Amino acid sequence: MRTLQLATIGAGRIGSNHAEIVARHIHGVTLAAVTDPVPGTARRLATELGAPTATTDVEEVLGRDDIHGVLITAPARSHTGLVVAAAAAGKHIFVEKPMAVTSADADRAIAAAEQAGVVLQVGFNRRFAPGFAAAHAAVADGRTGTPQLLRSLTRDPGPFTADPARIPQWTIFLETLVHDFDTLCWLNPGATPVSVHATADALVRPDAKADGHLDTAVVTIRFDNGAIATAEASFSALYGYDVRAEVFGSEGMVTAGNGRSTDMTFYGPQGIHVDTARRDTELLRAAYTAELTAFADAVRHKNPALVTGHDARRALSIALAAIRSVETTATVTIAEVTA
Amino acid sequence: MRTLQLATIGAGRIGSNHAEIVARHIHGVTLAAVTDPVPGTARRLATELGAPTATTDVEEVLGRDDIHGVLITAPARSHTGLVVAAAAAGKHIFVEKPMAVTSADADRAIAAAEQAGVVLQVGFNRRFAPGFAAAHAAVADGRTGTPQLLRSLTRDPGPFTADPARIPQWTIFLETLVHDFDTLCWLNPGATPVSVHATADALVRPDAKADGHLDTAVVTIRFDNGAIATAEASFSALYGYDVRAEVFGSEGMVTAGNGRSTDMTFYGPQGIHVDTARRDTELLRAAYTAELTAFADAVRHKNPALVTGHDARRALSIALAAIRSVETTATVTIAEVTA
Amino acid sequence: MRTLQLATIGAGRIGSNHAEIVARHIHGVTLAAVTDPVPGTARRLATELGAPTATTDVEEVLGRDDIHGVLITAPARSHTGLVVAAAAAGKHIFVEKPMAVTSADADRAIAAAEQAGVVLQVGFNRRFAPGFAAAHAAVADGRTGTPQLLRSLTRDPGPFTADPARIPQWTIFLETLVHDFDTLCWLNPGATPVSVHATADALVRPDAKADGHLDTAVVTIRFDNGAIATAEASFSALYGYDVRAEVFGSEGMVTAGNGRSTDMTFYGPQGIHVDTARRDTELLRAAYTAELTAFADAVRHKNPALVTGHDARRALSIALAAIRSVETTATVTIAEVTA
Amino acid sequence: MRTLQLATIGAGRIGSNHAEIVARHIHGVTLAAVTDPVPGTARRLATELGAPTATTDVEEVLGRDDIHGVLITAPARSHTGLVVAAAAAGKHIFVEKPMAVTSADADRAIAAAEQAGVVLQVGFNRRFAPGFAAAHAAVADGRTGTPQLLRSLTRDPGPFTADPARIPQWTIFLETLVHDFDTLCWLNPGATPVSVHATADALVRPDAKADGHLDTAVVTIRFDNGAIATAEASFSALYGYDVRAEVFGSEGMVTAGNGRSTDMTFYGPQGIHVDTARRDTELLRAAYTAELTAFADAVRHKNPALVTGHDARRALSIALAAIRSVETTATVTIAEVTA
Repeated sequence: MRTLQLATIGAGRIGSNHAEIVARHIHGVTLAAVTDPVPGTARRLATELGAPTATTDVEEVLGRDDIHGVLITAPARSHTGLVVAAAAAGKHIFVEKPMAVTSADADRAIAAAEQAGVVLQVGFNRRFAPGFAAAHAAVADGRTGTPQLLRSLTRDPGPFTADPARIPQWTIFLETLVHDFDTLCWLNPGATPVSVHATADALVRPDAKADGHLDTAVVTIRFDNGAIATAEASFSALYGYDVRAEVFGSEGMVTAGNGRSTDMTFYGPQGIHVDTARRDTELLRAAYTAELTAFADAVRHKNPALVTGHDARRALSIALAAIRSVETTATVTIAEVTA
Repeated sequence: MRTLQLATIGAGRIGSNHAEIVARHIHGVTLAAVTDPVPGTARRLATELGAPTATTDVEEVLGRDDIHGVLITAPARSHTGLVVAAAAAGKHIFVEKPMAVTSADADRAIAAAEQAGVVLQVGFNRRFAPGFAAAHAAVADGRTGTPQLLRSLTRDPGPFTADPARIPQWTIFLETLVHDFDTLCWLNPGATPVSVHATADALVRPDAKADGHLDTAVVTIRFDNGAIATAEASFSALYGYDVRAEVFGSEGMVTAGNGRSTDMTFYGPQGIHVDTARRDTELLRAAYTAELTAFADAVRHKNPALVTGHDARRALSIALAAIRSVETTATVTIAEVTA
Repeated sequence: MRTLQLATIGAGRIGSNHAEIVARHIHGVTLAAVTDPVPGTARRLATELGAPTATTDVEEVLGRDDIHGVLITAPARSHTGLVVAAAAAGKHIFVEKPMAVTSADADRAIAAAEQAGVVLQVGFNRRFAPGFAAAHAAVADGRTGTPQLLRSLTRDPGPFTADPARIPQWTIFLETLVHDFDTLCWLNPGATPVSVHATADALVRPDAKADGHLDTAVVTIRFDNGAIATAEASFSALYGYDVRAEVFGSEGMVTAGNGRSTDMTFYGPQGIHVDTARRDTELLRAAYTAELTAFADAVRHKNPALVTGHDARRALSIALAAIRSVETTATVTIAEVTA
Repeated sequence: MRTLQLATIGAGRIGSNHAEIVARHIHGVTLAAVTDPVPGTARRLATELGAPTATTDVEEVLGRDDIHGVLITAPARSHTGLVVAAAAAGKHIFVEKPMAVTSADADRAIAAAEQAGVVLQVGFNRRFAPGFAAAHAAVADGRTGTPQLLRSLTRDPGPFTADPARIPQWTIFLETLVHDFDTLCWLNPGATPVSVHATADALVRPDAKADGHLDTAVVTIRFDNGAIATAEASFSALYGYDVRAEVFGSEGMVTAGNGRSTDMTFYGPQGIHVDTARRDTELLRAAYTAELTAFADAVRHKNPALVTGHDARRALSIALAAIRSVETTATVTIAEVTA
């Protein structure tokens, strides 16, 4: 098959990471263009990676026939609009999570892609991390039996230095824990989330709580097969980036994630020491490469996407229920927020 | 000092375990008597361990001047009454958890011991497990910073073969998770639990749910320092007895518990294999010995008990709030159940 | 820079592995040709990987101006001749270990590449495995202090099913342990190997010993900084492919390699279970990709190779001393075998 | 049975450790007397542990009918003489390793105990460490198949601060590695050591080498079942006390020892941290208690000792061959040194 030409929309931290993988590490794929609204940003990245086009104009990229697909790595609130526009232009779409932050938007994104007949893959990267994938295989193979207790957590590397005022409200649910919500659904195959109870606070930056900034959360989710899942997040883990999952079932337990950066261990006067991964782009390097390779394969081989808009909508529904649970302190059903 | 003479009240599984440790593994302590209501049971254990007295009559033991203390290892519902009786008889008391299953009983037990001036130590064994003690030291030393997210879990070894009908309602909270509730309070030193949300179900024995038997539970606890804790329990872990804790704080994280029975690792055609501990009496052998040694030391050196009736009341209050939360599906404050 | 065009010489197991990485996973590199003496073998691999040329004629590839470099993955005994021929044709060279099996051949290969001014990189892949690289960094940074005791081992995955008669004599030293000899020198930077004592036997296939087939060996190496190193190999590890290293020094110890295939852990009725990697191409996937990327970078940026012919000659000298030690049962100096 | 009365001969570091265990942690055993040649030393220890007798006179203890057995924890060179004297006095004997430092002395000790009909148990403590015991069970059960490659190591905690001039020559073989020699024989059940090659140096204290002080050694041992074993020792591991073993066999591998002090793990800004055990009395606490309990049980139940004088003689024979190998740089057969 001819070379697949992709463009990135958004050249920030994750956009740059994905662009580099596409440009250098996936066979048969070319980074044809980089877009970013900030003048100069797209140009710098395109030059570094040898992409022929750099522009601040998304329309320019969507209008080109020789570009087959886009990676949407712009700010979360713009994702749905970009998905709809890209679908309308007939581009295949890899969109970073969250695909949408309202149910209506999720429906709109899914419908647009279906109508256009384009691939729509969502950036739930953990599904492609080797340990998580092996855990999923163990569950899917029946080795754990029926899932009864699940856990998934995300701890962003600290210290937290961002300006809380620039982080949209509910980000911990819509952008961070949405990963865990997807992971928990994926690790409980065939089951549907039913109700949610959430607790959240500003423990890292208590001073920012008055403005609605939350940085620490625990969410309990009931599934229709009885399983009880816990999702947990913090914006500031001083020891690095930490994502883990655990599935306890009627026949056994499986865990994934250990935070190590390599299998090297040092023994010194202070004891045993192991290096941790400090960033998602380090810990999940293989996962990012695998998910983008899977996207390219879906486009080229006309396979269905491995992570769909429906998956994104399901994870979003848990996030929306969690938000309402924080607002009301009550247990909230998924039905309430998706009705 | 002269030899400390102890008697066990209850010669079941844990009573036998404790009796053996007292009889054989603690210096300067003698197992003077064994009591059990079932004729023959006390006699068999006493003979095996060389204890001079075996009886079905607790009063006989409490009435003897040469017996300095008792280990109460009878069924949970009898604990408070036995604590009160032993205190009235001037005996020092080690009581298995739960010390009481109502707030009034907890108060009654504490008052009885205080009035009698006897040691009252409660069997929260994890505090004495080396890994948990090291985790506590790390938190107490400030190495983790302020606790923000905590987790404690108990998974009893499966398969679950007991008759659910013979297990009192709410046992998962009052007898199992009460361990975790104590662990979480202990690992968040200086903080007070404020509110509780619990989810529970009969996932191991769904058929027994109609009778109020619950075998799987997740509890979320808020503390007055902001920390959010999760306690989790199952009655049937096929891989063995599993107790673990995790404290994530502003400066770092500490974990305890790994389920291994030794540091031996086997590598064979199926991969890497590590044996797990199958029972609490195997996994927590060192902890049981340490807590009973601490009890003996408290009696002999007139030190305060390391785990007090107040600790038991605090853990109980969380259990009571969790029960009410299951009944109402609401978040329940500790104040509501202790008022 | 224009695309780098590479050809593989040898399309066996490792040749196919390397060809696939070059064809699909290294940016700016093309697999231009595949050669293999067996008719059809090159064609099959070339077709699968989209390489335009497949041939049984190495000369055809060496004569093409548009091919910049070769990967020599033919049988060990042909390596030196191919290095010399490729150098004479002005091709940059990545040669699988061993580069040579006699000192004279090692000198010949080094001289040919130097004379031709081409890159010559040898396939000591462990230097590129993340854990080994981190271990090396710890030693090079001085964290372990002066190395005093070192260990490196190779265990090929079992069961061993090859025909011993088709494996050249001394293969365990010249082809297997040569990896460990390089690893030990690399992990003891600045030190020179001085003497060697080796023990070897046919424990996997005792029936093949009469034909000189050895499948199990332990080698002790003294270095001029006093360090004592042990290298160990077996041809049949039933649990999978196992390579590990350990450096114990005056300030601390570092280890690399743990045999796990992912960070997934399963807990079931038999205990704790972890999957192992079954082949070098699985365990060392990242290392193979990194070493071939480093080769491409050396060619494109005219950097010196990270693993040189001199490194290969040094490792070979230990292998030759080990062979003589087995023959004589004496300790053999490096000087004796390189004179 | 009546209480077993034991006396310790030697109240140094290990003598004190053993005395404390006997006095406080073994049921039915009393520490009746403490002897030490340094005036005041026995007295202090006896007072601390409540032992009624303290003396500088070994004869006084050996002459007492109410003392049933002795623990010989005096300096190594005095062990044999004390074993012979204790046996002559009819005392059961637990003797720290090495039981003897010459073959003749080993024979003499064994004969004395046999003639007197007393228990003679040697202090090879690792056999009683839970992980080592589980490894042995795996080998004995056939799970590893026939042992082919073995490893055992001892690293004493550093920094090394003793005066090398006060340490007898060959101590690293006779007192340190003798542990590993026993471990390797025990982990290769049914096999007999045949020949030995050793390398040793003064890498920790190079200045002391001229006086014959060696602090670092590697020993290779061939067994009559073909297995090749490596024993390794250093006097100065800055990270703590480290003893480990590995058995690789035709069916699998087993390892024991991981250096952790508990199952607590800390994650902080520097990465993952695990505490190590700093002393043998910390790492092997359970093993020391188990071996002394086994000794008491052997005396009381008239069982054969679990670690015999014959085991000590076998380990000694390897040490003697290793010494001769260092002296001659040749491979030395066991037959040469025991003839």
